[in-house]
Amino acid sequence: MPEDTVGAFVPGPHAQVAGAATGPLAGLHCAIKDLYDIAGWPTTYGNPDWARTHPVPDSTATVVTMLLQAGASVVGKTKTVELAYGLTGENVWHGTPTNPAAPDRFPGGSSCGSAAAVAARLVDFAMGSDTAGSVRIPASYCGIFGIRPSWGAISLAGAAALSPPYDTPGWFARDAATLRRVGEVLLPTQPSATPTLLLKPSEAWANADPDAAESLAPAIARLEALLGPAIPVSLVPEGLATLYETFRCGSAPEVWAALGPWISSTSPEFGPGVKERFAAAAAMDPALAAQARAFRRVFQSRMHALLAGGAVLAYPTAPGPAPFLTATQAEQNAERERTISVTSIAGLPGLPEVTLPLGTADGAPVGLSLVAAPGRDLALLALAERLVP
Amino acid sequence: MPEDTVGAFVPGPHAQVAGAATGPLAGLHCAIKDLYDIAGWPTTYGNPDWARTHPVPDSTATVVTMLLQAGASVVGKTKTVELAYGLTGENVWHGTPTNPAAPDRFPGGSSCGSAAAVAARLVDFAMGSDTAGSVRIPASYCGIFGIRPSWGAISLAGAAALSPPYDTPGWFARDAATLRRVGEVLLPTQPSATPTLLLKPSEAWANADPDAAESLAPAIARLEALLGPAIPVSLVPEGLATLYETFRCGSAPEVWAALGPWISSTSPEFGPGVKERFAAAAAMDPALAAQARAFRRVFQSRMHALLAGGAVLAYPTAPGPAPFLTATQAEQNAERERTISVTSIAGLPGLPEVTLPLGTADGAPVGLSLVAAPGRDLALLALAERLVP
Repeated sequence: MPEDTVGAFVPGPHAQVAGAATGPLAGLHCAIKDLYDIAGWPTTYGNPDWARTHPVPDSTATVVTMLLQAGASVVGKTKTVELAYGLTGENVWHGTPTNPAAPDRFPGGSSCGSAAAVAARLVDFAMGSDTAGSVRIPASYCGIFGIRPSWGAISLAGAAALSPPYDTPGWFARDAATLRRVGEVLLPTQPSATPTLLLKPSEAWANADPDAAESLAPAIARLEALLGPAIPVSLVPEGLATLYETFRCGSAPEVWAALGPWISSTSPEFGPGVKERFAAAAAMDPALAAQARAFRRVFQSRMHALLAGGAVLAYPTAPGPAPFLTATQAEQNAERERTISVTSIAGLPGLPEVTLPLGTADGAPVGLSLVAAPGRDLALLALAERLVP
Repeated sequence: MPEDTVGAFVPGPHAQVAGAATGPLAGLHCAIKDLYDIAGWPTTYGNPDWARTHPVPDSTATVVTMLLQAGASVVGKTKTVELAYGLTGENVWHGTPTNPAAPDRFPGGSSCGSAAAVAARLVDFAMGSDTAGSVRIPASYCGIFGIRPSWGAISLAGAAALSPPYDTPGWFARDAATLRRVGEVLLPTQPSATPTLLLKPSEAWANADPDAAESLAPAIARLEALLGPAIPVSLVPEGLATLYETFRCGSAPEVWAALGPWISSTSPEFGPGVKERFAAAAAMDPALAAQARAFRRVFQSRMHALLAGGAVLAYPTAPGPAPFLTATQAEQNAERERTISVTSIAGLPGLPEVTLPLGTADGAPVGLSLVAAPGRDLALLALAERLVP
C-alpha cells in the first residue's frame, strides 16, 4: 500500500487481513471504517475513551467477512468522526483526514478516512457507514463514488450503532464498476428492475448552490438520454427543512438509546461539536420525537408511492462543496442543517442512493445522487455504470 | 320518464328494454348513447346516412346486456356527435341537446345526449363512450359525474368504433355512489388498491382558466385531507401541446382505418366541422403518425412508472366551462386543442379518469378529474365517493 499521505487510517499498526485467493473481488484492496469489528484489532469508533472501555473484538463484522470471502484484502481501518456523529469528517484525536480533492476543505464524514483513502488511491474501495449522510457526503466532498444501500438490505452485525432505524453500511470506489462489484457481493439477490423515469425534486435543486446545480446539467442531459426528459416534482410541499427537523427529532431518541448509557457511565471526552450534539439528543422533547416519527411514516409512504414504478430521483448529493477547514462551528452547523435536509430525502424512507462525482463548484467536487425505491440498489448501481462507464 | 325537455334522446320512438327484476342496479333507469347496438332498434351513430346504410342490429352490445342483467332498464338512446367525432355536442341532424346546467353553452360531446339526460334528471345514469374526452368533457360541462375507465377494461363489442386504440365506454351519474354501482357491474374484478399520494400536474393547472382552477381549491383541500399534501409534478416537459399533437397525429390513421372505407364508399353528408376533421384524418402524414405512436409509448411508460405505487393525479377535467353556443368554428377549434391537450393525459396512456362536478367558472360547471394507474378504476370510484359522499 502507498504511504498514507492523507491521514486516512487510524494511527498505529494497520489491521491487515488477506482475502480469499479466488472470488469476485480477488485482488482488490479495501479499507474498513473503524466502527466495524475485525477480530484481534481494536474498534476505536473514533474516540480514545471508546477504545479504552471496549474489549478487542474476537469476531469480525459480517460485511467484512463477506468481503474477505469474496477475495478482497483488508489493508487497514480508517478514521471516523467520533461515534460517527458528524458530517465534516473532523476528528481531533486521530487527526482529520485530508480531502485529496480539495485539501483546504473538510473531507466530509463520518466515514472520512474511507473516503480519503479511496480518493487518494490508497485502496480500491472502502467500507463506511451512513446514518445522516456519512457515506454520501464524504463521497460528494472527495469526488468519488459512494452508495447508501436500502435500509436493512445489508447486515450491520459487528458494527457499532449510532441510530439503528437510520443506520446503513455503505462503500466508496473511484469508478462505478467497482462500486457495483462490491454491491454484487454484499447485497441480497434483488428482482431485476429497469429504471423507467427520471424525476428532479425541485426542493433539492433549489437548495443547492447555483454553480453546483449548474455543473450537474451535462450529467442530467446524459441521464435524460437514457431515461427520457426529467420530470420536475416537488417532494416536500411542507418545505425541505421539515425533513431536517424530522431527522433531527426522530433520530435523537434512537441515538441516545444506543449510546446514552455508555456516555452517561463513561463521561468520555469529545471534540468540538460532538458533545453538544449528544447533549441535544439526550434532551430531545418526546412530543417532538413522536411527531417526527409520524411524519417519517407519511414521507416514507409518499416516496414509496412515487418510486414504486421504477422512477429514479436525481439531485445534488450535497448542497455544495465541502466547507473550508477554517469554517466556524456556526457555519458548519448551518451547512449541516442544509445538508441533512437533502440527505433525509433518501435517509428517512430508507431508499438506496448512489452518488457520482459529476459536478464541481468553486473548484471542489459535488456529487450527483440517484435514488430509487427500496430493493433497487443493483439497478441503481447498473444505471450509474451506464452513465459513467 | 319525464318529458325530454333538453332534447337528449334521438328523435323518434324510444328504445325501451326492461331490466332484470333483481340485481345490483334493479330499479335504475338508464339511457344509452346511440352508438351501442340494441337489438331491434337502429343505431344512427348520430348521422342519417349511417342509419340508412346499416341494418337494424339483431344483437345487443355487451355493456347494455350487462346493465339489463344487473337490473337497469333502458329508456332510450341518446344523441351523439356524428360518428362521435367532436367535443362540443353539436348535431345538426338530431338537434344539439341543451346543457341543463348552462343553456347558453354547448353540452359537450360526443356523448352529449347521455350527459344532458343525466343532468336533466331524465335517467339515473347513462352510457357514453370516450375517445378524446367524449364522456369526461360533457360531464364537466353539464356538472355531473363521469368516468372513462382503463382502456380495454370493458368490452366495446356491439359499439361503433371511432379510433379503437383510444376508444373506451364510459358513463354518467349525478352522484358518486351511482357512478360506482354501475362500475361494479361493468368493471372486471380488480385487486384492491388504496390511493396513496396526491399529484397535481402543473401543466394541466396552468392550462386551465384561472377562475376554474381557483374554484377547485376547496376540493383539492378535501383531497389533501384524505391523501396528504398535493405534490406538484410536471408530466410533460415537452409541453402540454405535445399531447394534443400526439393524439391528433396518432389517432388519425386509426380513425380513418375504422371509418374511412364507409365514408369513401357512402360520401355521407356531415354537419359543420365533422367533414373537415375526417378529411384531416384521411390526410395525416404517416411519418407524423409514426412519431406520435412512438411518443405515445414513451408517455405511457412515464405515466405508468409515476402512478404504479398508487398515486392519484388531480386536475381540472376541462380547461374551462363549455363554449357558448355562439362560439365561432375557429373558437371551437382552439378550445378543442386546449381541451384535448388535457384529456390526453389519461387518454394516451389508457388511464382511468373520474370527473366530479366540483368547480365553476363564469357561472358554469367545471369538473375535477382524478386519474390513476390502469386497473384502479374501482379505487378511483371509491375515492370519488369518499370525497363527495
